[in-house]
Amino acid sequence: MATGDIGLIGLAVMGQNLILNMNDKGFTVVAYNRTKVQGAHSIQELVSKLKRPRKIILLVKAGSAVDDFIHQLEPYLEQGDIIIDGGNSHYPDSIRRAKELEAKGLLFVGSGVSGGEEGARYGPSLMPGGSPAAWPAIKEIFQKTSAQVNGEPCCDWVGETGSGHYVKMVHNGIEYGDMQLIAEAYDILKRGLGLHEDEIADIFLKWNKGVLDSFLIEITANILKFKDDDGEPVVTKILDKAGQKGTGKWTAIAALDAGTAVTLIGEAVFARCLSAIKDERVRASKVISGPPKEPFRGDKQLFIDDLEQALYASKIISYTQGFMLMRETAKEVGWNLNYAGIAAMWRGGCIIKSVFLGDITSAYQKKPDLESLLFDDFFNKAVHKAQPGWRRVIAQAVLWGIPTPAFSTALAFFDGYRSAVLPANLLQGQRDYFGAHTFRVLPGKENDKFKAGEDIHVNWTGRGGNVSASTYNT
Amino acid sequence: MATGDIGLIGLAVMGQNLILNMNDKGFTVVAYNRTKVQGAHSIQELVSKLKRPRKIILLVKAGSAVDDFIHQLEPYLEQGDIIIDGGNSHYPDSIRRAKELEAKGLLFVGSGVSGGEEGARYGPSLMPGGSPAAWPAIKEIFQKTSAQVNGEPCCDWVGETGSGHYVKMVHNGIEYGDMQLIAEAYDILKRGLGLHEDEIADIFLKWNKGVLDSFLIEITANILKFKDDDGEPVVTKILDKAGQKGTGKWTAIAALDAGTAVTLIGEAVFARCLSAIKDERVRASKVISGPPKEPFRGDKQLFIDDLEQALYASKIISYTQGFMLMRETAKEVGWNLNYAGIAAMWRGGCIIKSVFLGDITSAYQKKPDLESLLFDDFFNKAVHKAQPGWRRVIAQAVLWGIPTPAFSTALAFFDGYRSAVLPANLLQGQRDYFGAHTFRVLPGKENDKFKAGEDIHVNWTGRGGNVSASTYNT
Repeated sequence: MATGDIGLIGLAVMGQNLILNMNDKGFTVVAYNRTKVQGAHSIQELVSKLKRPRKIILLVKAGSAVDDFIHQLEPYLEQGDIIIDGGNSHYPDSIRRAKELEAKGLLFVGSGVSGGEEGARYGPSLMPGGSPAAWPAIKEIFQKTSAQVNGEPCCDWVGETGSGHYVKMVHNGIEYGDMQLIAEAYDILKRGLGLHEDEIADIFLKWNKGVLDSFLIEITANILKFKDDDGEPVVTKILDKAGQKGTGKWTAIAALDAGTAVTLIGEAVFARCLSAIKDERVRASKVISGPPKEPFRGDKQLFIDDLEQALYASKIISYTQGFMLMRETAKEVGWNLNYAGIAAMWRGGCIIKSVFLGDITSAYQKKPDLESLLFDDFFNKAVHKAQPGWRRVIAQAVLWGIPTPAFSTALAFFDGYRSAVLPANLLQGQRDYFGAHTFRVLPGKENDKFKAGEDIHVNWTGRGGNVSASTYNT
Repeated sequence: MATGDIGLIGLAVMGQNLILNMNDKGFTVVAYNRTKVQGAHSIQELVSKLKRPRKIILLVKAGSAVDDFIHQLEPYLEQGDIIIDGGNSHYPDSIRRAKELEAKGLLFVGSGVSGGEEGARYGPSLMPGGSPAAWPAIKEIFQKTSAQVNGEPCCDWVGETGSGHYVKMVHNGIEYGDMQLIAEAYDILKRGLGLHEDEIADIFLKWNKGVLDSFLIEITANILKFKDDDGEPVVTKILDKAGQKGTGKWTAIAALDAGTAVTLIGEAVFARCLSAIKDERVRASKVISGPPKEPFRGDKQLFIDDLEQALYASKIISYTQGFMLMRETAKEVGWNLNYAGIAAMWRGGCIIKSVFLGDITSAYQKKPDLESLLFDDFFNKAVHKAQPGWRRVIAQAVLWGIPTPAFSTALAFFDGYRSAVLPANLLQGQRDYFGAHTFRVLPGKENDKFKAGEDIHVNWTGRGGNVSASTYNT
């Protein structure tokens, strides 16, 4: 009776494809869904058909549906059985669920699953984290089901409770960023250089043979080439209102909460928000004009090469920021994250899969405690090489009036990051002036009044008191 | 015995100055503090000294201290008494507190108080919202205590529960933005044009006589001119790590939650985050170089005029975004916000007080349901006039390698906002390609396959199925 290797609940697009994939790899999957039934007619029957320790993967909508199925499963499970949530759950929920289930003797794994329909069918990127005792029991199924790159699975143990969904969240945030960068490049080629979708597709195809070689660049070329029956590119018939499912927003909020400058994902999320107010934009376009249109006078091919470098450099910044965020959160929460492993998991199977992630894997393999991708030789050289073209592209887009929020914020971060001194001294002066918030002295400028390590308040106006704002802050 | 007009708890810098201010305006203030005592030796005594309905304003640290004092006050209060929280509370807390107190027959007001030490002493901006029945009882004290501009108080009733603190939060977010814009202008003048703090102060003094006339520009000039005993500007001795107290971050998170592109405040918060990792920046500055330094060859004065316009245009965008956020949230929560009133409250008393806010007040007085500041004649003309210089400044900063995250994001928003068509069509194509997320057709491009109002999925690869991702989203 109990012959199933793994149970699966949720038969929408991801679930259906994952079943076929696991089946291909030789595992017996028992599936259950509230409406359609394949193999099991009830939760109880599903559980009874599984070998122990039982492994049940939920691929249902994030939120209360996950809790509902956990509650339905619990009565039939025994010590050591494993519930795996493969949905896009928010990581604090996964932390909570792991605690609750572990208290009852069950094991919980929150696993990022990426790759969409195709990935689920032929090999997704899997990012499992949670109860450590669960890993040996699920390792084989997970690593065989996942994508493989150079014979290595795009799946490894991410870390402690909540970290699997956290890393998946950052993956999705980075995906928002990558997509926005590609959209800006498309916009510049179309509105700036005036190229047709076919010409732009060829440029992306060429880029896909270089440093930008990646799934998103590849499908962008395919999309741009895809024609409707009348010969027009389908992409030109798509409404320009981008939807979002929350994980990009979560990443931006997590960055704000961690105090980490993950600006590119932030701008990518806001760019979708701005796209969503289409009607207001159409009204605005009628009363606000841009700079006078001037034909491009430079060398088109050189400019296209610059654009490739701008995209590449911005992408390096985005991943630098994403890894900064994971490092900062891991420090706070106490996770031991394997950064080389994370990059390796993302090399294949998922939406952001790319040659680039192989280079990141190498960087962290060489130096597991690498402070920043920009300190790695390979990326340091790459960003220096890309810099002049990156700057020329943004300056040109600014003069053309083509919005490049992601390219621009990447460069602003780069220029801020490499600035030993930023104008935040003025901000601190202002905060002390109007709110007695105090400041510290710049190293090398200490004197009798300005002592190192002290909170300094200056009576700027001669009027205000010297009460510093220690308890009340305006 | 009961002769007090208002009770005040919390005697740090804001509380002390507000007492002096209210006293000047003829009100009898009874003060209480856990450590220092002025007037009342206990909460009970404080309450007993107040006329009914009693009004007690809390100026304590946001968070549990507010709840603690509310609980201490409750036993001594009677039907219709009013607790006012004048701290920087997060608005969801104010909504909760209002509900709890109203259920007990008490009234609650959450009031934004801005202006720092100086404002509290000589007239702050006050933004009260909460139990409507409280307003007639506190109106006189609040409007007399607040700053006055052209004989009008910088205080009016903001709206329903939580709205006072919400509007104060947005005010603080805008303050972050204004400060960041000034810091970027300072950086460009110093690192770009190579000017000394005294010269830069003179530029700010001049700007303070034009469209940028504001408290923050004025104090910036004062700060830049302020010398240490050795003659060096104090600002050059201040450590460039900007602190933050959370309200800027809250605004950015509120924007993400509301799906509103408040990019400038977001960048301002992230710029402080980047400033905070000083040690990492110093290390980065040693291994990452910028563009080769070239002297500025243009006309300095023209460039400085361009910079003034860049700052002005970016500021218009920031306030446009801030008012978009308030409008969006009011729609969601069901508040009736008086936008002209809000701008009028900010005209004086607070950190962002400016001539500019008088222009915003006029815009909303002329058209209370104004969709966007950019649709107002005055601001529409202003932004068109500023546009060429704004673009030249950013292009120059990009080539210089001076970070302008706020200037740049403002321009990207402007160029996106005035774009009837954005490249989000490609994003939607990508999302449908890899995740079967579907898209809508662009108006005017409908045909038999692409129908208006329908969720359309294209089988891009010929391989994938046609299951759309209705329940599970990767």
